[in-house]
Parts: sequence; structure tokens; C-alpha cells
Amino acid sequence: MKAIADISIIPLGVGLSLSPYVAACEVVFREAGLEPRLHANGTNVEGDWDVVMAALKACHERLHNMGVPRIATNVRLGTRVDREPSMDAKIASVKEKMKK
Amino acid sequence: MKAIADISIIPLGVGLSLSPYVAACEVVFREAGLEPRLHANGTNVEGDWDVVMAALKACHERLHNMGVPRIATNVRLGTRVDREPSMDAKIASVKEKMKK
Amino acid sequence: MKAIADISIIPLGVGLSLSPYVAACEVVFREAGLEPRLHANGTNVEGDWDVVMAALKACHERLHNMGVPRIATNVRLGTRVDREPSMDAKIASVKEKMKK
Amino acid sequence: MKAIADISIIPLGVGLSLSPYVAACEVVFREAGLEPRLHANGTNVEGDWDVVMAALKACHERLHNMGVPRIATNVRLGTRVDREPSMDAKIASVKEKMKK
Repeated sequence: MKAIADISIIPLGVGLSLSPYVAACEVVFREAGLEPRLHANGTNVEGDWDVVMAALKACHERLHNMGVPRIATNVRLGTRVDREPSMDAKIASVKEKMKK
Repeated sequence: MKAIADISIIPLGVGLSLSPYVAACEVVFREAGLEPRLHANGTNVEGDWDVVMAALKACHERLHNMGVPRIATNVRLGTRVDREPSMDAKIASVKEKMKK
Repeated sequence: MKAIADISIIPLGVGLSLSPYVAACEVVFREAGLEPRLHANGTNVEGDWDVVMAALKACHERLHNMGVPRIATNVRLGTRVDREPSMDAKIASVKEKMKK
Repeated sequence: MKAIADISIIPLGVGLSLSPYVAACEVVFREAGLEPRLHANGTNVEGDWDVVMAALKACHERLHNMGVPRIATNVRLGTRVDREPSMDAKIASVKEKMKK
């Protein structure tokens, strides 16, 4: 089962600069073989459900190992079985509708 | 690693009545040994990360098997290593502050 | 337009204990005439869209006035025009399905 | 008060193709003077809190007027008072950390 996920990770107890931790998770996602797409409020990834979820867990573990005591994550998670889901197809479909 | 999760599952392509699918996921969570707490916009569960995440996957699979073609889920996910996280403790802590 | 909202407010830069701030928002919601329902990962409210959103803004303002430098909020927001939405009806509908 | 918002709108009861509705909201955001940034799981906007929230409401209203009976939206909402928040600065900060 393929999943598309939008992951927003908020480390708590480390002050106001969250970017070192977001960057660390980008590295974790790449180590997992994913191609993370950073945006202003999260990171999009797509892949096998188990691969995506293992990467998410690895990210929490990495951050805790970096000294983050508490993490609050928000994940938007999409699966579909009518056809192969794709982040590129989702974006292309919206852009095409906007031309009309 | 223990996780507290708030799971909001939205089945797409099955019309406007989502409650049969939310109910099916409650059953899946119980089968996983979790004690789901339903609220008006999701379900709270707590437990070992792997158990919670396996239940979430099983829920997506159950719904797809029930004929749901597409699912959009939002998950709020908390972990902490400074002390044992607990849903009861979170709620009690807020209620205590409200008395003051 | 009536809205049902599930609001999870995460104050940043104030350490690990978030409950004083969640409690402050409960007070704000009540001041707005809403009947907030606290759960382990957020607070559910329902009411006129404008009332709910004004309360959410007031909550951010209250927390910033309490000294919170940064806030990350997640809101699940539901509207429907086929019939009057209701938090009680949503929960009752799921529970009824679980009996079967 | 400036807000950065990540808005994921899910229309219910209109089948599986959501892109016409996402596209309609992009138009609404532009009409509001915002510069929406579409990604695979939502749309990022930044601006004055009231402008952003009025656009979000206008989007729900537009979709209901298009015949969507029910909408489930997830919004990630950030405010900060320590310095001016900026989507570009957030992304640049993460990318800089990744170079190290």
C-alpha cells in the first residue's frame, strides 16, 4: 500500500529555532530512500506505507537522540486503491483545473 | 517509544455518512489492544509506537477492504522522553490549571 | 455557517509544560460563549464560523500576551450545508454503528 | 498579527476528484490578495490573520456554492511575535542547516 504523507514535526523544549530539527528529519527521510519535498509548513513524501512510517519513527528517534525531550507531529496521510497515488499527479491535476 | 495519537480518518468516495468507517476503525483499534477514546473530530489512542502505527495501517486496510477507494487521515502524534507520556495526565494537568 | 472545530494549540519557546496555555484558551473559548470539550490532543468547539474563528484569534492573542513568542496550531474544521452539523450527532452516529 | 497557514481542504460527497475544488480555493486565495503556494497536500499562504481567515471562510463558502455538501479542512497555523514570520525565511533556514 502506497502512502502520500505530509509531515510537520514540532520539537518542544528546544527554543524557537526549529530548523536544525526539520533539517535532521530531511536527512532521515533521504536515508530511508524517500525524496522529501520541503515546504513552508511541512515535508511531503511518498512511498510504501511501511517505508514512510519507518522513516517517521526514525525521525522522532533521531530528534530525541539530539536532545529533544518532546515532539508534536502532525501528519496528513493519503492512501487510495482506485489508482496509483502520486504527488506529481495531484499537483498537475489542480494546475490543469486552474487553467480553465 | 510510547506514542499518543489523535487520529481523524476521512474516507472519500463513499458519500457523506462517515460514521460506519469511523466505527470500523474503533474496532480495529480495540483488536490491536488499544483503548480508543472517540471524540467529535477524531479518536485518541496511546501505546507503543509500533502498536499504534500497526493499528493505523490496519484501519486503512480495513476501510479499503470495505470498499473505500480513497482515505485522507490526519494524525497528531506526540512522543516524549523526559517522562512517560499519558493522555490522562495531559487532561488532568489542564483541568488543574483551570481551577486557579 | 456553522463550524465544528478541533483545535490543538502548541506554544513554542515556553518549555515543556503546555497545560497553562491550553487552560488559558479554554477560558477564552468560554468567554466567547462556546462550550469547549477538552480531549487528550485538543479541544472541540462548535458554533457560528465567525464566533469560533474570533475565539481562535483571541486565544493566539491571549497566549502572546502571556509571553508566548511563537504558536503552532492545528485546526480540523468541518462545515456542511446538507444538514445542521452537531458534535453530539457525530459521536452518537459512530456509537450506534459500533453496536451492530 | 501575521499568520502563516497551511490549508488542506477535503470536499466530501463529490466523489474522488478533489482537484476542481482545490483549484477553486486557489482562485479565492488570489482574489483575497494572497499568493498561495500549492503543494502535494495543501496550500501555504501568509498574510494578516484576518485576511487569511476571511479567505479560508470564502473558500468554504465558494465550495458549498459549487454544490459541495460537506467540507473537512485541516489548517496548520503559525503566529509569532519575536520577529516577523516569513515562509521564505522558514524554508531558507532549513536549507541552510542541511548544508552543514
